[in-house]
Amino acid sequence: MKAEIIAVGTEILVGDIVNTNAQFISRELFSLGIDMYYQTVVGDNKKRLTDAIAQAFERADLVIFSGGLGPTEDDLTKETVAAYFEAPLYYDEAIGEDIKTYFKNRKCPESNMKQAQIPQGAMVLANNHGTAPGVILQKEGKIAVLLPGPPRELIPMFTQQVMPFLKSRSDYVMESLTLRLFGVGESAVGEMLSDLMAGSNPTVAPYAKDHEVTLRIAAKAETKDAALSLIEPVHQAIKDRLGEYIYGYDEEDMPKTVAGLLLEKKITIACAESCTAGLLTGTLGNIPGISAVLNESIVTYSNEAKIKYLGVSPETLERCGAVSSETAGEMAVGIAKTAKTDIGVSITGIAGPDGGTEEKPVGLVYVGVCYHDQVTVQKLTLKGNRQKIRQAAVLNALNHVRKRILAE
Amino acid sequence: MKAEIIAVGTEILVGDIVNTNAQFISRELFSLGIDMYYQTVVGDNKKRLTDAIAQAFERADLVIFSGGLGPTEDDLTKETVAAYFEAPLYYDEAIGEDIKTYFKNRKCPESNMKQAQIPQGAMVLANNHGTAPGVILQKEGKIAVLLPGPPRELIPMFTQQVMPFLKSRSDYVMESLTLRLFGVGESAVGEMLSDLMAGSNPTVAPYAKDHEVTLRIAAKAETKDAALSLIEPVHQAIKDRLGEYIYGYDEEDMPKTVAGLLLEKKITIACAESCTAGLLTGTLGNIPGISAVLNESIVTYSNEAKIKYLGVSPETLERCGAVSSETAGEMAVGIAKTAKTDIGVSITGIAGPDGGTEEKPVGLVYVGVCYHDQVTVQKLTLKGNRQKIRQAAVLNALNHVRKRILAE
Repeated sequence: MKAEIIAVGTEILVGDIVNTNAQFISRELFSLGIDMYYQTVVGDNKKRLTDAIAQAFERADLVIFSGGLGPTEDDLTKETVAAYFEAPLYYDEAIGEDIKTYFKNRKCPESNMKQAQIPQGAMVLANNHGTAPGVILQKEGKIAVLLPGPPRELIPMFTQQVMPFLKSRSDYVMESLTLRLFGVGESAVGEMLSDLMAGSNPTVAPYAKDHEVTLRIAAKAETKDAALSLIEPVHQAIKDRLGEYIYGYDEEDMPKTVAGLLLEKKITIACAESCTAGLLTGTLGNIPGISAVLNESIVTYSNEAKIKYLGVSPETLERCGAVSSETAGEMAVGIAKTAKTDIGVSITGIAGPDGGTEEKPVGLVYVGVCYHDQVTVQKLTLKGNRQKIRQAAVLNALNHVRKRILAE
Repeated sequence: MKAEIIAVGTEILVGDIVNTNAQFISRELFSLGIDMYYQTVVGDNKKRLTDAIAQAFERADLVIFSGGLGPTEDDLTKETVAAYFEAPLYYDEAIGEDIKTYFKNRKCPESNMKQAQIPQGAMVLANNHGTAPGVILQKEGKIAVLLPGPPRELIPMFTQQVMPFLKSRSDYVMESLTLRLFGVGESAVGEMLSDLMAGSNPTVAPYAKDHEVTLRIAAKAETKDAALSLIEPVHQAIKDRLGEYIYGYDEEDMPKTVAGLLLEKKITIACAESCTAGLLTGTLGNIPGISAVLNESIVTYSNEAKIKYLGVSPETLERCGAVSSETAGEMAVGIAKTAKTDIGVSITGIAGPDGGTEEKPVGLVYVGVCYHDQVTVQKLTLKGNRQKIRQAAVLNALNHVRKRILAE
């Protein structure tokens, strides 16, 4: 089955909202193995919507519409799709009553009664979070699914009513596995896996984002097991070539992975942050339950604070500077000692845009990890603006912690 | 001028990423008064991309492409648009050198050299955040703008290079002013400004995001001055009604606004964070030059750390609990004292998902500000998941600091 999405709404075309519905629907259809080749956004305009509908059904069997089911005159999706399917609208008493009930004590605006107009022969999708019912229309192998625009209405309607409808018509199952890689670039990955990326089942697609590369392996088969057994050999082949960079799978990003290790092994940690100024601790702090292993951290921008809280030697700061391997090492030792934790991790660097010199340019960052009294310091040369350098420093520090834990 | 957007990338069609670029570009084009009737997403497929290009140029004069400029074989936007414009590609030595420079000490993958292929006659847009240059192609009144997919590359390229190019071809001037409001909801704003929002020139559009509401006033006129003089009376009318909530304009978000105040007035600050665990300090730390007023901060999750570093009284913790007005106040005093700063700000609360009780539910957060030895504590009842609660706590703490400074 081939599908398309048409999002209807001038608010998307003028940039007032992001079309997150398209992502949600795409992911769900992908999980069913339904192909999608195009998505369209069109405004609240009858002629242009009519054209978009006709074109979509020339290319696809299934068209999913979001938006344009509201009570105002602008909202034309139902009328326009019904016209394409030559299905006249009728007033559905039961739905009219539902809408009135929705308003409870408040007076139901007259305009909302438009939402009880249903195309003849349509399947109605109940809306438990708003007044606009969804609609499924079918004719000569073409299926139109009409959904309300607000995600809090669309998502439950899709999950609870549209997915079962579509599953019953799908010929196969699609499974996927996402590998998360750190410390290697997208093009290097592309070169090392070009043979695997040329395959069509499973497909292998790399995607670079936020300082890491993800690789999605996706397979289509008649059963879940058959799909998984297509994925596994490709997964193994990638592990053989790029295993050292793979740190996690699917939704397990770097903060989750490292926090998971710390929590699982009950390893306590504290951070001493200079240029990242709380971002490392704040990132770990986003993981529920982290306070079992993270009790305190200190931000020490100034030399004075590094001396006062972490016991960094003034002589080291004088001789090597605040941004140095030596200072990073002493910071890591100092925070582990004062916080009495298994791991002390430190970050000191130059995030810019000012403060760089020829010898110590913007982007120079040292990460120190003290674990069981053994200190390792990593020198990083990071690129980008202040924000990017700080984020990359945090992820590198987390990866450094991860490697130290796994090396035990 | 009529415009369309074509986003190229299978990762959008399978739902791996949200097409936020479309929103960004739409908003920018709208600000120039350029009409947009359609947006399309198409996969990394030559035939379908070719069809989409032809169709878009049948309907529009300006087509903006995002994505598909990467180094892999999948990336076909440049080749395909160049073919449509009948512009052969050539290898641009200077761009090739730029790309090699980007990799510095690392080896530049051979595949990245594909990105130095430029269509004949094209205008090249420098990429200061990645290796893929952008391209503008023009022929017989048709304009194609090709931009890299990652937002961190696309946004600066669009703002710095595409906007001036488009502005120079627009028939009129569109000016806008964005007001930033904190502490008031979108629907309340909508109700209070419904008369102004009904206007067509200037338009007034509210937009809710990240715990704040922005209001964009946009006017179209023949000159910049004429557009600005349409905006000003509406701006004044909004100030009269909602002035207490307006904290900034345009790109001056809450962290920038507060950091700007601190830096301008040379007010030093230190933070004591419990549930936000570094996020407040890390947010301030993202502002260049902040180390002039922010030297240190302490994350104190545990009671022990609150006592050790901040001198919070064990009796207070015992009697009122760690999440209480009293503890927040003592934390704020304690951090100002130990860090010897003008302002000490504290956050303590329950970010969830666990740890809530009937008396102290998830989302209960106290923010304390000690300024010139005077302490004020604000009680917040925040909604959402852990991440949202922590972010909202940080913004409320910053707003609290802002109000205290302005009240002096």
